[in-house]
Amino acid sequence: MWLVGAGPGDAGLITVRGRALLERADVVVYDRLVGAELLTFTRPDAELIDVFKTPGQHTLPQDQIHDLLIERARAGKEVVRLKGGDPFVYGRGWEEIEACYLAGVPCEVVPGVSSAIGVPTGAGIPLTLRGQASTVSLVTPSVGKGLPARELPYAAMAEMDTAVVLMGGARLGEVAKGLIAAGREGATPAAVIQEGTLPGERQVRGTLATIADVVHDEGLRAPMVLVVGPGAGLPRLDVNAPAAGFGPLAGRHVVVTRPSSASRQVISKLRGLGAHVIDSPLIRIEYLEADLPGPRSDHDWMVFTSLHGVEGLVRQLERQGLDARFFGTARIAAVGPKTAACLEAVGVRADLIPGEYRARALVKAIAAEGKS
Amino acid sequence: MWLVGAGPGDAGLITVRGRALLERADVVVYDRLVGAELLTFTRPDAELIDVFKTPGQHTLPQDQIHDLLIERARAGKEVVRLKGGDPFVYGRGWEEIEACYLAGVPCEVVPGVSSAIGVPTGAGIPLTLRGQASTVSLVTPSVGKGLPARELPYAAMAEMDTAVVLMGGARLGEVAKGLIAAGREGATPAAVIQEGTLPGERQVRGTLATIADVVHDEGLRAPMVLVVGPGAGLPRLDVNAPAAGFGPLAGRHVVVTRPSSASRQVISKLRGLGAHVIDSPLIRIEYLEADLPGPRSDHDWMVFTSLHGVEGLVRQLERQGLDARFFGTARIAAVGPKTAACLEAVGVRADLIPGEYRARALVKAIAAEGKS
Repeated sequence: MWLVGAGPGDAGLITVRGRALLERADVVVYDRLVGAELLTFTRPDAELIDVFKTPGQHTLPQDQIHDLLIERARAGKEVVRLKGGDPFVYGRGWEEIEACYLAGVPCEVVPGVSSAIGVPTGAGIPLTLRGQASTVSLVTPSVGKGLPARELPYAAMAEMDTAVVLMGGARLGEVAKGLIAAGREGATPAAVIQEGTLPGERQVRGTLATIADVVHDEGLRAPMVLVVGPGAGLPRLDVNAPAAGFGPLAGRHVVVTRPSSASRQVISKLRGLGAHVIDSPLIRIEYLEADLPGPRSDHDWMVFTSLHGVEGLVRQLERQGLDARFFGTARIAAVGPKTAACLEAVGVRADLIPGEYRARALVKAIAAEGKS
Repeated sequence: MWLVGAGPGDAGLITVRGRALLERADVVVYDRLVGAELLTFTRPDAELIDVFKTPGQHTLPQDQIHDLLIERARAGKEVVRLKGGDPFVYGRGWEEIEACYLAGVPCEVVPGVSSAIGVPTGAGIPLTLRGQASTVSLVTPSVGKGLPARELPYAAMAEMDTAVVLMGGARLGEVAKGLIAAGREGATPAAVIQEGTLPGERQVRGTLATIADVVHDEGLRAPMVLVVGPGAGLPRLDVNAPAAGFGPLAGRHVVVTRPSSASRQVISKLRGLGAHVIDSPLIRIEYLEADLPGPRSDHDWMVFTSLHGVEGLVRQLERQGLDARFFGTARIAAVGPKTAACLEAVGVRADLIPGEYRARALVKAIAAEGKS
């Protein structure tokens, strides 16, 4: 069982090792703090289990999550438990790995970018600043369900240069007041980031005295991260992570309906342009088996009208132990550059691609060639 | 200019976005806290600039680092400034990005796994524990060069459930005493991790009262991370990140002398087995141009005695606009499975691979085929 930190939200902020594990997992168990884009890295046939439906709705009890992880791992599955941020900062990661370990399931924990640090950094707010801030407190007012509410250590937090508060809910005003009552100046710079590193990221600035009102006036909602300290008072340079507002498609949501196998590249390109991508495949391609003849020299043309046709051919060549010599001396036509690129991967370069990427244009172009 | 967090050490703990930027950068400016393995992700022709040679030796002054980044970016280069951990936690990342920004250089900051969190997590020590620890302090006793030494806020740290201290040097005993004097119990669990997430990772456990002696007795050295709190008292489950002790080659150092272009796969495999890889290419392969004839049907065999031969052919086919039809109806021999795999990528499957992967065996095998 791999306990993997998903990072603060943006799919590009998972670690290289975390993504590699996601890509090979048989089973991925995730919860509400994990961005949907990360799940597009999983195998099409991986079992994806959401243990937290929506806030307020049914959540799988902790011991049932343990049982689920242990049961799947014992069945020989490679199980990734994906947790928002770092797996050992809030979120009960330790309990899960301990339960698996005690059950005899081998475990590995893969650190992630914690929201407590990654969200401020992604928003351009340093927690430390040479000569001004070298001590940081990380706290959350949300104690676990079923535990007695606990007062935050305001006096201690007020002593540290920077306070980071992961806000579960609406206790921002109370936290700000508590810090001021403990001696932190009301004029201390403060910032709140909503949905940090994600396309919906919003950021407001103020002081400890004003920040609760600013957040209320601007209508920011949970999840939020509050930063109090000198870093929150620096100019807002345009240094956000790309998903948080870079690129011509920043802020746009794009639904991709292609089959999953074909959409990886499109999705990654859209993301590169700043879009938030929702991967919703509406069709599935399946390949049939059919016997191919061996290489023959009496074909004039071989014509490919889709990527999928090439992919089907590749599989069939593979199955029959054939290779590019199958094409013999035939001339090769492809409906468009994507199909041609796919053919190049099998070793042949299309001799003809019509100007307009449609089957009709393809036929015309071949006919024209024949005449010339 | 991209300011990228390299993570706590293990090359697998950089973010996906960080690695993608490293792979395309023209210039990479890095310092002492960046693991050498990360630099193998850079382009062979990328300019790598080390601004911190070795501790005690010459370090580039901060303003000269700024000038360097600005100068390279203005020359049209894609510049990655790679910093250990998260770029905005210690390490003066803000100063660098501010300087670039003010100079009109577009900037982006990519968060990373901070050592303050990633090192304890990688070592199996949670900073928070439901019902036992929900507040964390992050501090370092190393104030910047040229700044007046500053007392740590021990009273405040003693109030928080968990204290994380990034130790620049040898002030461990002083920090432990300070926390005890401020009211933290001497019996509080404490752990120190050296070279966290790296192959040289070592971890010792004790209490706040004993940890300095334990570290001294065990001979741990900087860089170290001290964790004080309930998480340090949990059982040491075998949950370390892979680079920190997993796999049959864990703890071994392997020097790879192959040319960089050919060693990526070997390096990644060695890493997967737990080895610490030192990439030191001792030869370089260059490809010459030579005119190939067009496809002919009168060749009986085409024989490939090395990967590089295939690679050279691929480039030449490309240059002349030829494809796999070049092979005609010839039978194809490859000296070994790697060379054969390389041929498959061009579209042909080797008809013959000798049992022993040497040119001599290849000749024998072809001769035997001819006789049969």
